[in-house]
Amino acid sequence: MLPDDTRVVSVDDHVVEHARVWLDRLPLRSREAAPQIERGAGGRDTWVFEGEPVSDFGLDVVAGKDPREFGIGPVGFGDMRPGCYDPAARLADMDAEGVWAQMCFPTFGGTAGTTFARARDKQLAADCVRAYNDFVLDEWCDYAPDRQIPLVLVPFWDVPAAVAEVERTAALGARSVSLLEAPHRLGLPSYHSDHWDPLLRACEEAQLPVSMHFVSSGAPQGVAPDADAFVSIALFGVNSVMACVDLLMSPVFHRFPGLRVVLSQAGIGWIPYVLERTDYSWERHRFWCDVDAERRPSELFRDHVYGCFTSDHAGIAQRHAIGVEQILFSSDYPHPDSNWPHTRKVLAEQLDDVPDAEARSIAEGNARRLFRFPA
Amino acid sequence: MLPDDTRVVSVDDHVVEHARVWLDRLPLRSREAAPQIERGAGGRDTWVFEGEPVSDFGLDVVAGKDPREFGIGPVGFGDMRPGCYDPAARLADMDAEGVWAQMCFPTFGGTAGTTFARARDKQLAADCVRAYNDFVLDEWCDYAPDRQIPLVLVPFWDVPAAVAEVERTAALGARSVSLLEAPHRLGLPSYHSDHWDPLLRACEEAQLPVSMHFVSSGAPQGVAPDADAFVSIALFGVNSVMACVDLLMSPVFHRFPGLRVVLSQAGIGWIPYVLERTDYSWERHRFWCDVDAERRPSELFRDHVYGCFTSDHAGIAQRHAIGVEQILFSSDYPHPDSNWPHTRKVLAEQLDDVPDAEARSIAEGNARRLFRFPA
Repeated sequence: MLPDDTRVVSVDDHVVEHARVWLDRLPLRSREAAPQIERGAGGRDTWVFEGEPVSDFGLDVVAGKDPREFGIGPVGFGDMRPGCYDPAARLADMDAEGVWAQMCFPTFGGTAGTTFARARDKQLAADCVRAYNDFVLDEWCDYAPDRQIPLVLVPFWDVPAAVAEVERTAALGARSVSLLEAPHRLGLPSYHSDHWDPLLRACEEAQLPVSMHFVSSGAPQGVAPDADAFVSIALFGVNSVMACVDLLMSPVFHRFPGLRVVLSQAGIGWIPYVLERTDYSWERHRFWCDVDAERRPSELFRDHVYGCFTSDHAGIAQRHAIGVEQILFSSDYPHPDSNWPHTRKVLAEQLDDVPDAEARSIAEGNARRLFRFPA
Repeated sequence: MLPDDTRVVSVDDHVVEHARVWLDRLPLRSREAAPQIERGAGGRDTWVFEGEPVSDFGLDVVAGKDPREFGIGPVGFGDMRPGCYDPAARLADMDAEGVWAQMCFPTFGGTAGTTFARARDKQLAADCVRAYNDFVLDEWCDYAPDRQIPLVLVPFWDVPAAVAEVERTAALGARSVSLLEAPHRLGLPSYHSDHWDPLLRACEEAQLPVSMHFVSSGAPQGVAPDADAFVSIALFGVNSVMACVDLLMSPVFHRFPGLRVVLSQAGIGWIPYVLERTDYSWERHRFWCDVDAERRPSELFRDHVYGCFTSDHAGIAQRHAIGVEQILFSSDYPHPDSNWPHTRKVLAEQLDDVPDAEARSIAEGNARRLFRFPA
């Protein structure tokens, strides 16, 4: 059972960047092209970047709404809970849902910064990443440093610059780096190459676990084009399955024994099956494939990978096959998977039959230890 | 525990078509273009179709080999167990592994007949499908009708012809129809359309469960291009996950209440997680998406879908969340996943802690009931 004095730590939530995040921080020369909000009719807000409309709100900010309203969705700042973008209101919403601390991914920026990667002006893009990180460190998390865990982005399209940003933000208190789950899907080298080694080494040396949010490199591929959107949504975890197997079969964990990877919002119920299947394939195919034949994929998982769930009875039932110490909780505020304001209640129900010490590890201790939080 | 008198039924194995399957059955005008074996140096055999080399053997026929030999792989009929293609030798190999009955998919033809779909001459392609089915019904299964369950192909690129082939083969004793898990990946309409309705209706009316073999529509999409082959192999089940969710969110089971689908070789350990996640998405998104809001995806699964495993401790541990009656066994002879000749031993070890009646259902009874076998 979840002990009453557990201070729940969620490792996957989302901050909605307010309208002045970039306008206030970018160099003067970049102000015109900077991400900024264009107010339209009917309270509609649209992000404009490099002079082009880029994204609206909608399903990203539905916390507290009835699912019957999801189709219409909030269209602007005036139609979402202030907790989406205001740090004080966020704390109040966390109190209401029974979550003590959380780690937030960007909204406009994309969970791993892909919005910036698509910019024509790569210097502007790198400036935007730095401005976002400064916002997270100096404003969003600084408001309540004991309740917000700083997650930073990197300009992943430029490895030396990304290394520098890891080092810069680590010195400022960053606790995790958001990286793509499948860089090859953006036309970049995969984790099987040595392209990412300097960046992964920087994360390892700074003791910053890497968070790979599902769908950070795009939605699942191969879904029927005429399937409704929620077929893809239900399948988002498939991306994490693929990222997990890809990493376990890559040289990454052999090269960086101190590296830790969190599969953010991935769900956990699939992990025992996937580890068993991957070990099974490794046993049969490791001789003709170029893979490390010394360590089983499931051993690499145990030493390097963390799962993350919101509602996953199948995963909790299998927690010993996953590794109790490797399970983290995700509230996912203010996204549709969120159970706000019933977050703690829904979590506690799942942990009802779990011994107190294990429940406490899953809901709080594992995240605190992994992210060294608070410092 | 698996009772000693259980006659294990495997619902996913593979027959290697012998060299004269099509030469003996195709109309005279088609003989030259028919699939035929070209014998090369060093015992190498290559399938030639429409005058073009199409495929070699290799990993498809490794039963009994040490994994250390997988890289080289059998190159021709002379280098594989006769049980691959000879019905009498197959029975002997089944006796050796402790499997009483099995259902075989094609090898050269592709698990759902995709090799024929790629032919330039679509009449030839349809003739090839018919010849394959006649081979399965009159030769392969007829040799031991109490031990081989006939699975047939259809010319899926032509729905009326496919309907006719279902009706023709049902009358001849077919027990299952192999269909694509993701037709949209071959440029055909998806299961969300009404394109397949006549074919699905024909299967329903003939009481023929549909078998969807993983990777029948191609390997998982989105794998790193420089990942070793076995990353993809370890991820084959992802295709079944996607097919499962796709079907549960489609109109298929609402339109055809008598239709049954087997996810062949899919593994089962992922099922509870996937059903929970799909229900969760359905609860939140069914109002704005065009989906049947009356029945939960997990209910549709319970009434329509069957899983299939070879080695899956995670799945057996979760058998009640899956549905004991919906679990089928796969030996996968002569593929690399096979445990031949230790098949029954490996199965029995997995069922060691399972009550006898449940073990018997999983290893034998469910398949007999689903496929009405023997008649």
